[in-house]
Amino acid sequence: MPVSTQVQPDSSVGCEPFEYQFRVALHDTDAARRLFFGHLFRHLHDAYELWMEALGFPVDMLIREGEILLPLIHAEADYRAPMHHGERIRVQLALSQREATRFTLAYRCLNDSNKLAATGLTRHCCIDPKRQKPISLPKTLAQALECRAVHRTTTGDPFDER
Amino acid sequence: MPVSTQVQPDSSVGCEPFEYQFRVALHDTDAARRLFFGHLFRHLHDAYELWMEALGFPVDMLIREGEILLPLIHAEADYRAPMHHGERIRVQLALSQREATRFTLAYRCLNDSNKLAATGLTRHCCIDPKRQKPISLPKTLAQALECRAVHRTTTGDPFDER
Amino acid sequence: MPVSTQVQPDSSVGCEPFEYQFRVALHDTDAARRLFFGHLFRHLHDAYELWMEALGFPVDMLIREGEILLPLIHAEADYRAPMHHGERIRVQLALSQREATRFTLAYRCLNDSNKLAATGLTRHCCIDPKRQKPISLPKTLAQALECRAVHRTTTGDPFDER
Amino acid sequence: MPVSTQVQPDSSVGCEPFEYQFRVALHDTDAARRLFFGHLFRHLHDAYELWMEALGFPVDMLIREGEILLPLIHAEADYRAPMHHGERIRVQLALSQREATRFTLAYRCLNDSNKLAATGLTRHCCIDPKRQKPISLPKTLAQALECRAVHRTTTGDPFDER
Repeated sequence: MPVSTQVQPDSSVGCEPFEYQFRVALHDTDAARRLFFGHLFRHLHDAYELWMEALGFPVDMLIREGEILLPLIHAEADYRAPMHHGERIRVQLALSQREATRFTLAYRCLNDSNKLAATGLTRHCCIDPKRQKPISLPKTLAQALECRAVHRTTTGDPFDER
Repeated sequence: MPVSTQVQPDSSVGCEPFEYQFRVALHDTDAARRLFFGHLFRHLHDAYELWMEALGFPVDMLIREGEILLPLIHAEADYRAPMHHGERIRVQLALSQREATRFTLAYRCLNDSNKLAATGLTRHCCIDPKRQKPISLPKTLAQALECRAVHRTTTGDPFDER
Repeated sequence: MPVSTQVQPDSSVGCEPFEYQFRVALHDTDAARRLFFGHLFRHLHDAYELWMEALGFPVDMLIREGEILLPLIHAEADYRAPMHHGERIRVQLALSQREATRFTLAYRCLNDSNKLAATGLTRHCCIDPKRQKPISLPKTLAQALECRAVHRTTTGDPFDER
Repeated sequence: MPVSTQVQPDSSVGCEPFEYQFRVALHDTDAARRLFFGHLFRHLHDAYELWMEALGFPVDMLIREGEILLPLIHAEADYRAPMHHGERIRVQLALSQREATRFTLAYRCLNDSNKLAATGLTRHCCIDPKRQKPISLPKTLAQALECRAVHRTTTGDPFDER
């Protein structure tokens, strides 16, 4: 039985994407006077870290305890509008997909005008740090991820139709 | 008459250092499992940018308007205790010194246990971006800096005796 | 028109992917003792900048001249093996696709054991900085890109069958 | 004891400061179109890491072996001329001071015109990672540091009179 069907999402938390805000700092920009694309991934990961903390699985605790690691196996972003120095960017994060050993998070970055400036994806694989091999997500983490997952739409886009 | 004596500090705002908090993110740490020293300067500058915004002189506005730039001519930090992944660090910022064309900010970084983890200094020089030459700080900025300056102690340490 | 006169493609190079090497520095790693995924994009972009320089179109010159900008509209990476502190990583870069207003570069990162540690893609759109609208790639740049493009395989993978 | 057996100082080098070159990448710059001051410390540390490698004490090996760590207790830089996108910066590094448990390195950054663009200092303290307490520098490391130290001048500036 696939792990993904074992969970009964807690409908009381369900449908809100997690939100995180950052300000485009001077060091985020480059000589072309926009956010340097690569720096966005720092901010997406900051959102992910705070989300994991909210779920009860702080990444720093996971690393210290050494039972599992959740390294990224894929990251991507689409840049739709330049993000400028001083702008406040709201990052929305939602679970996009969960499998036995991995999960994918989707991100949307909204600028000061509430315009979609960027989207992103990060895919994380659960590994055993000693053997450096994929292992199943701990059941408690899998449940926590689903609890905070947003309602899936027919398009598969976790942010769709909201 | 030196610029520094023209200002009448607004005692209503005076004596509190500006405070900013950050969380030590995974990307702030390194393989030695502590904050990489160089990344601290990003956070000190974030505190500086928010302070300038609070003073009414957002750095992004200054760069866009192009009348003055305030590049750093000196930066330093002393590291007293490792800053670990997940820790919340409070950065306190205060004006340390102001001269005609430059000013120095002092920083203190307090960790979760309220222990002094690091101190820092940044010295900024006011330049004319067209000629790339030092010029006097605009009077309004000089006044704003003094208004938020903390009471100077006999030791010259803006954080002393508090 | 500066852009049109810059390039003298070096026809001797043709079908070799461009190669760039970096060392995984302490600041590239994180508390999980591997390269932080987001930092890889700095290195991919360094490879891209040196490639553009080799083509006769240094990115810094393009930004200074202000005729065109080539901002990223998409970036992605797949991480196959952890990259460790001190490892030398060879980045291979090749043109993957070129359209009227945009081009896509593919990257392969090989570690000390010549194992594929990561792959990446960056897609760049040519814009007019004044109007912030897509425009056609300058002909000279389009030609230079093609000159250095590797032979396309039937799979469309620029690194395939080599 | 791994640390003590590593080094074969190259006596042919002696009094020359160690030199390292970097190119100011797009991600090193900011919206003010110069190198962001904080990013310089990444490059100074890169020079330090290559120097330690040349001395036979790669920092990644030290961290992996876990006998000693050499965290920074102080870092500073003075910025004398803006460093621009695309510029090649030569970093010269020399031992400035050595005490029982710590050492200080001095850096000079020369730009394309051979002009001094910045200077820097980093002070490293040798600690026992288990107890997080200062310990004496391993004798072999102390010797290696001295072997590569440049001739001290009467001013104490390791770069003076050359």
